[in-house]
Amino acid sequence: MEMGMIGLGRMGGNMVSRLLRKGHRMIAFDQSPDAVKAKVGEGAVGAVSLGELVKAFQGRPRIVWVMVPAGDPTSATIGQLAGLLESGDVVIDGGNTNWQRALADAAVLKQKGVHYLDAGTSGGIWGLENGYGLMVGGEPDIYKHCEPLLRDLAPPGGGLVHTGPEGSGHFVKMVHNGIEYGLMQAYGEGFEIMKRSKAFPGMNLAAIAAAWCEGTVIRSWLMELIAKGLTEDPELSTLKAYVEDTGEGRWTVQAAIDEDVPAAVITHSLFERFRSRDTNSFSDRLVAMMRKQFGGHAIRPAGHG
Amino acid sequence: MEMGMIGLGRMGGNMVSRLLRKGHRMIAFDQSPDAVKAKVGEGAVGAVSLGELVKAFQGRPRIVWVMVPAGDPTSATIGQLAGLLESGDVVIDGGNTNWQRALADAAVLKQKGVHYLDAGTSGGIWGLENGYGLMVGGEPDIYKHCEPLLRDLAPPGGGLVHTGPEGSGHFVKMVHNGIEYGLMQAYGEGFEIMKRSKAFPGMNLAAIAAAWCEGTVIRSWLMELIAKGLTEDPELSTLKAYVEDTGEGRWTVQAAIDEDVPAAVITHSLFERFRSRDTNSFSDRLVAMMRKQFGGHAIRPAGHG
Repeated sequence: MEMGMIGLGRMGGNMVSRLLRKGHRMIAFDQSPDAVKAKVGEGAVGAVSLGELVKAFQGRPRIVWVMVPAGDPTSATIGQLAGLLESGDVVIDGGNTNWQRALADAAVLKQKGVHYLDAGTSGGIWGLENGYGLMVGGEPDIYKHCEPLLRDLAPPGGGLVHTGPEGSGHFVKMVHNGIEYGLMQAYGEGFEIMKRSKAFPGMNLAAIAAAWCEGTVIRSWLMELIAKGLTEDPELSTLKAYVEDTGEGRWTVQAAIDEDVPAAVITHSLFERFRSRDTNSFSDRLVAMMRKQFGGHAIRPAGHG
Repeated sequence: MEMGMIGLGRMGGNMVSRLLRKGHRMIAFDQSPDAVKAKVGEGAVGAVSLGELVKAFQGRPRIVWVMVPAGDPTSATIGQLAGLLESGDVVIDGGNTNWQRALADAAVLKQKGVHYLDAGTSGGIWGLENGYGLMVGGEPDIYKHCEPLLRDLAPPGGGLVHTGPEGSGHFVKMVHNGIEYGLMQAYGEGFEIMKRSKAFPGMNLAAIAAAWCEGTVIRSWLMELIAKGLTEDPELSTLKAYVEDTGEGRWTVQAAIDEDVPAAVITHSLFERFRSRDTNSFSDRLVAMMRKQFGGHAIRPAGHG
């Protein structure tokens, strides 16, 4: 088939490579001419603007995958595409777009008769070789039309699901990432409990992680990454204890609140990320202040090591 | 090699089967004569008492695996074995024994010169085919001596680690199970958020779970069990929303407290299990009572549906 890719970063660039290998005709655009040049070197048709990308299609309907940062960049790109594409064309948003925003993006396209699929995409930089986990929302016949491309992006024989109407793909991907926060935090806490064991100091955590990859109940792909990471840097001394987030955890907690669902573990895994960024919290100082006020407990003055 | 197995339940019985298939001479004892008979049918030497099991060994030192319920039954069995075995023999405790209790059990054996390995064992009923994840504490030369048996219980080429001195195997298995609680709770919450979505009601959770088994960041062995379970019973209508625990989560939280490690997610996953058992909590009634007291908020009287 034929597909355009907007955004040739780690995700979009690798997806172009994967689809080229599968024999598809790929039209590649990025703000960086070097990124476009690299994909042309792999066999893609290069485009230096959205307009050129749209013109480079040989067949109809066009299928354009948007893989730029979620939020304003994605919505702006979709807005531009609405002015360039024709009725019947398809835009696929593969980013971590908020599902409610996705509905607004889809509405912009619908005014021009352009279809929208939201393809929640998981797998990170490993997707190129392993295939991407894809959770796709949208009209059934549009999904069906794009399925050969989606199938070739996903792992052979699996990892692809039509989740329901527009927006549901991003919703399911949002929950996927919320779960991911919880899993990562659980592993993190467990390894810290082993790391700080007084009874058994100095355990070989890399060896334990490697053993946990097979036969155990907690074996997983994340466990394999942990084993790899601890083998490369057993003390994790090259890392700052600071964990970012890109919104999906927050939206998952918001969805839980909207639905009256208690989600203690996912919520706490999000809050632990906030915690990691705040080494001088007002809350901690307020608690220390109260202990001093009512009990004369020792406090550590600011600047204390 | 030659090994005795005490306890032929789902774990011990399958481990005997696995070791028989690998060509080891197995001596099998259980309180249930039928359980012993079944293993004799597979080629094991049967024993109707601990004394008979000890006498049935052809070689020295004897290796006896204890796979009875953790706690008093295991400690009682080990106490009896201390009186029956000879100096140089080895007892392996494969249960979910508290690591501090394991040290006491080991001390009882050590008085008679009997060695002790604590083999934290994961894999459940799937271990028979897949192999068991084994985390083993004890003296290095005793571990070395038993390694061929441990190797044959574990998955080919992996899933086995010598964690350190006596007690460390159970400590690591305890943390494994604490992590397991967190992972399970994160998956549970995520699926409930999808289940109760107002925007996308009636999503096919079994299909989503199956897709999540490949290519995604959250793919895992538990994810495969979820996909299997949701395919068999999409509404989980055959289950009561009641989650038991067998202690390892509690001990993990206790270890975190002893080490000053914040373990919000593992702790909450334990508390959510407690929560699942308490549908009429005093705490909930106290909070409802206060809302009524200060704000005249409506309450639901006891007996209200």
